[in-house]
Formats: sequence, structure tokens, C-alpha cells
Amino acid sequence: MPGQNRQWQLTARPQGLPRRSDFTLATLPVPEPAEGEVLVRTHYISLDPAMRGWMNDVRSYIPPVRLGEVMRAGAVGEVTASKHPGFRPGEHVAGMFGLQEYAVAKGDALQKVDAAAAPLPRYLSALGMPGMTAYFGLLDVGAPQAGQTVVVSAASGAVGALVGQIARIRGCRVVGLAGGAAKCAYLRDELGFDAAIDYKSEDVGRALGAHCPKGIDVFFDNVGGDILDAALVRLARQARVVICGAISQYNSTAVAGPKNYLMLLVQHARMEGFVVFDYAARYAEGMTAMAGWLKDGSLKSKEDIVDGLETFPETLLKLFNGENFGKLAIKSV
Amino acid sequence: MPGQNRQWQLTARPQGLPRRSDFTLATLPVPEPAEGEVLVRTHYISLDPAMRGWMNDVRSYIPPVRLGEVMRAGAVGEVTASKHPGFRPGEHVAGMFGLQEYAVAKGDALQKVDAAAAPLPRYLSALGMPGMTAYFGLLDVGAPQAGQTVVVSAASGAVGALVGQIARIRGCRVVGLAGGAAKCAYLRDELGFDAAIDYKSEDVGRALGAHCPKGIDVFFDNVGGDILDAALVRLARQARVVICGAISQYNSTAVAGPKNYLMLLVQHARMEGFVVFDYAARYAEGMTAMAGWLKDGSLKSKEDIVDGLETFPETLLKLFNGENFGKLAIKSV
Repeated sequence: MPGQNRQWQLTARPQGLPRRSDFTLATLPVPEPAEGEVLVRTHYISLDPAMRGWMNDVRSYIPPVRLGEVMRAGAVGEVTASKHPGFRPGEHVAGMFGLQEYAVAKGDALQKVDAAAAPLPRYLSALGMPGMTAYFGLLDVGAPQAGQTVVVSAASGAVGALVGQIARIRGCRVVGLAGGAAKCAYLRDELGFDAAIDYKSEDVGRALGAHCPKGIDVFFDNVGGDILDAALVRLARQARVVICGAISQYNSTAVAGPKNYLMLLVQHARMEGFVVFDYAARYAEGMTAMAGWLKDGSLKSKEDIVDGLETFPETLLKLFNGENFGKLAIKSV
Repeated sequence: MPGQNRQWQLTARPQGLPRRSDFTLATLPVPEPAEGEVLVRTHYISLDPAMRGWMNDVRSYIPPVRLGEVMRAGAVGEVTASKHPGFRPGEHVAGMFGLQEYAVAKGDALQKVDAAAAPLPRYLSALGMPGMTAYFGLLDVGAPQAGQTVVVSAASGAVGALVGQIARIRGCRVVGLAGGAAKCAYLRDELGFDAAIDYKSEDVGRALGAHCPKGIDVFFDNVGGDILDAALVRLARQARVVICGAISQYNSTAVAGPKNYLMLLVQHARMEGFVVFDYAARYAEGMTAMAGWLKDGSLKSKEDIVDGLETFPETLLKLFNGENFGKLAIKSV
């Protein structure tokens, strides 16, 4: 067993975009698992927009990361030592292991993953939290009907690309918003979206009007800000706005509220938020569906893997400047 | 039949608060009903916050009032001539008669009201649009359960006072927001609210925290702005925010969006809007319930009647500066 564990600790609360100076790359002894725990060597570590919120000292759906603690992150890895009867060395597991090379975790906080059934990074994307987020957020909160128009923002991102594909599988007309011609072409040509709007070069409001002639029945929002406002004025009657995230606002000190929210009144529409953990009891249902669609080829999953734990502070920024293309993760070993 | 009809016409689109110069008090011949129409002498004319929106030239749930047209308003009055087989002179009716002394209306756009069963102004409050708004907005959109905490803004207003009482009747804990000690005392002592918060003299956020120790299950919002934001951060899990209106924003050129809307995500809550006309097919249900509660004394209705059609531009402002106390209406004759 190697003796050292490199670990990214949050050591200052970021103002605006996180900087390298907000973190410390510490080198610590590899921890020992206690009774009921296992030691995991992380292989792929997930980078998610939600991490930005976890850095703030505010009330939210989970406590903030404390200063001096390892930065919270989901990851997949391999069991290297076990004091839990359910896990043996060599097995692959997913869990909230943090931005580090080794983690100890309680056995009941782990999920076994089958490295033969899918590449490991897929358990951080379609078969992981983004997959569950897309599946339950779209189908349970958004509740689209076949033939309805579904619009998704950050549509080439980890969650958005899955949302659009699930909507297509369910018989909806799907319009995605993404930044740049390459991402838009990918949505249309590879993922089967009916239309893609390049928010960097197009008038989003006008393009939504053109591509959604009967209005938007479900708007699945990952970005907030001006794009949310543009969608609100084009809602159909009884539309559902799914609030999954607001990446445009996470680095702002003052969140811009949706100034067109009174369109909810005009259209008898609703705006509803959720967190994937709300659906923990139903993950098996979601995993079965996602695995089935991956297997029959109706769903594609794309991962954007960056090599090296030490790149974390800069790699994280790819999420906020739109540089990532697919699910962003760090290869830790 | 008198020969003249005084009529308030919208002749300029208001910027900010409406002014007398935005309207013209015209004197016209009393109109003649055509086949299928009746002539109505208006007795009480309803003044509603929604009227401010109808003055703007924007897309909404109904077309704006055109310049030169009679200002749209609900009213109750008496049939003075009829060319419709279903109506006879002397009968009392409610409808969208506008701000004028006489109106012609198609018979199928009228509702007969029983002047012996309730004072006429009540058909503009608990037994009219505010009553239907409160009944369906609270019970259908807000869907409160007995024992849950319901908070209502503009709680001494036409809709808010009914919302709070219906919530109390349904076994909820009820907290109202109103401006001034007299209105707050009325909510507690006369209407049976569990608590009232004076938004003019109290810290609304702190008071909500004190009066809603388990969070807000249903927030019925008539005002928007800072009060909506204060409520959002105190939502309970799976709360419902009912967007009925936003009187704090109606005279603003730029609506302030709810900057705390991401609390919907944190609490798996929803924000849903509606317009009373959405429930037209179910008014009979609502009227029966409201009439029953009025009759058994569990529901009180308070009207604030101002004498004189000519006072309209100034009387309307009572809604926006919080001077009205109960359902505001003009006595036309």
C-alpha cells in the first residue's frame, strides 16, 4: 500500500470564480479504514457545477464544505482494503470520495459498479449522478408528453445532453441551447435533437420563437439568467420549468432573479426545483432505464476526461467558461 | 331612461402609477341593446390590481385595453332594458361592464346575482372574482393540507383576506402580511389568522422565521418583490408558491425577479401561477363553497366602497399605496 495521499482541500471561500489560491494540495498519510469501512483508490473524479455552491457558507440542501476539509466530489475507484464484509479489494465502487487519491468510506455509502459493463467514467455520467438528475428531473419534475416541445439549456453538458436524448426517446420535439457551432452540430447530428441554438452567436429569444412555434412545454434549465428569462416569455399553457441549476449565477455575488416570472401567471405554468438526492430511493429504476437505452444505442454518453489531480483548480473552470464538452472528470491515476 | 352615460376611457398608457391625465371622463348617449343584449345600470364597480396590467400594451392572458376604449372593470348592476329572453328589467347581474354608468352586454356574458341573498358589493368580493381567485388559487394551485403553514401577502386585501380564512377553515396555520397595526389586528382578531406581520414596521424575514418555525408550506403571493424573496428562503420541503399577483411591481418599468428562486431547487418546491378565468368551468363549485361559509359565519367579507364614478383615478391609487381596507369598489349610483 502506498503511503501517501494527495488531497485538494478548500482553504478559502472563493469570491466569484474559484482560484488556485482558494485550495491547498496537501499530502497526507493514506488513511486506515475502521470497522465497516473500506479504503478506495480513486480513478476518476467528477467535476460538477454544483461544487461551486458547496464552497459557499450558506444554507442549502447539504452543508457547505468546511475550510480545511477535502473538497467534496463524486468519484469512481477501486477497493484497496476492506473492513466491510460486503466489499473486497479489486472491486469497483462509486461514492462521494472527494478530490483525493485515497478515501475511506462506510460500506453503506458506496455503490458497486461493473467495470466490465461500461467504462468507469460512465458511472460519473449517464450511469451516475448526471444520469439520475436527467432521468428524474425530466420525467418526474418536467413530465413531458409525447409530441410536446422540450427545451434544455447547457444542452451539451453532462445533464443537458442526457435530458435532450431522453426527451427524444419519449417522443418529444427537442431544442437544445449550447455555446458554439461544434456543440450545436453535435446535438443535432449525433444526439438527434430537432434543433440547436448557439447562444453565443444567435438571438436566443428569436431562435426559441422560430424553433418552438407552439411554445415551450418543458424548459429544463441548467443556466438561469438571461436564457431563463428568454424561455419564460415563450412558455406554452401549463408549461413546466425545471430548475436543475443556474451555472450563469454560481459565481455571482448577487443572483439575478427571473424578471419574467409573471409569465407563470399568464400561462398557468409552474417552475419547480429538485436535487438528485431527492430521488435516491428510485435510483435503481433510473439506472435500469439508462443502461437499457445505452445498450440499445438510443442514448449516447460523452465524457471529457482531463489527466491529473493537480490540474483541479483550472480544470474546474472549464465548466464555468463553457470549455468542457461532455461530462467533465479528472483522471486521478 | 336617462339620456347620458358617463364613461372613463383609457386615453394614454400610464408610465408608473396611473394619473388622472391617462384617462378621460366622457359623456356619451346611453347605448341601445341589440338583439340578445341587455342594458345594465352599474351600481358598484370593482377596482382590482390587475387593471394596472390591462393598461399596458403587452401580451398577457387577455388583450390590453385599447386607447379610447372604456376602462375594463367588473361590476354589478341592474338590468334596465333587455332584448335577451333570459333577463328582465329589475334583475341584478354581474359582468365586465367597465367604468361607466351604463353598459350593454350579451346575455351569455352575464351572471344573475341575488340581491336578497347578499349585499350587492359582495358579488364583487367573496362571491365574485376575488372569491373565485382565493378559492381555486389556494385549494387547487396551493393545495394545502390540514396542519400545514400557509402564508399570504396583501392579507387584508380582497383576495388575501379570503385566502387566509379558507386556509383556516381547512385547518392550516395561517400567517398574514399586511401594512399597519389596524390591518394586522383585523387579521388576528376578526378573521382568525394565527399571526399577522406588519411589513411596514417589522423585519419581514425575521418575523416569518418566528411565526413559521417549521417553514412555509404554501406561500400565496399577491405582491412580489422583497416579500416574495423573504418567503422563498423560508420555504419548507416541497412547498408551493402560488403566484396570484405582484402588486409591488405593477407600476415598475422593470420587474424585479425573485433572486432567491434557487430555493425552489434546495427545497424541491414549486412556484405556480394562475388566472381566475382558468377556473371558469368550476365557478359554481367555488360559489357554493363561499356562500356556505359566509352563511355559517366562518368566512367574513369586507368591502371598501368609495362613492362616485368621478373619483376613479384617485380611488384606484388606494390599491397601490395600501390605503384600501377590504375589497375596493366604486359606488356608481
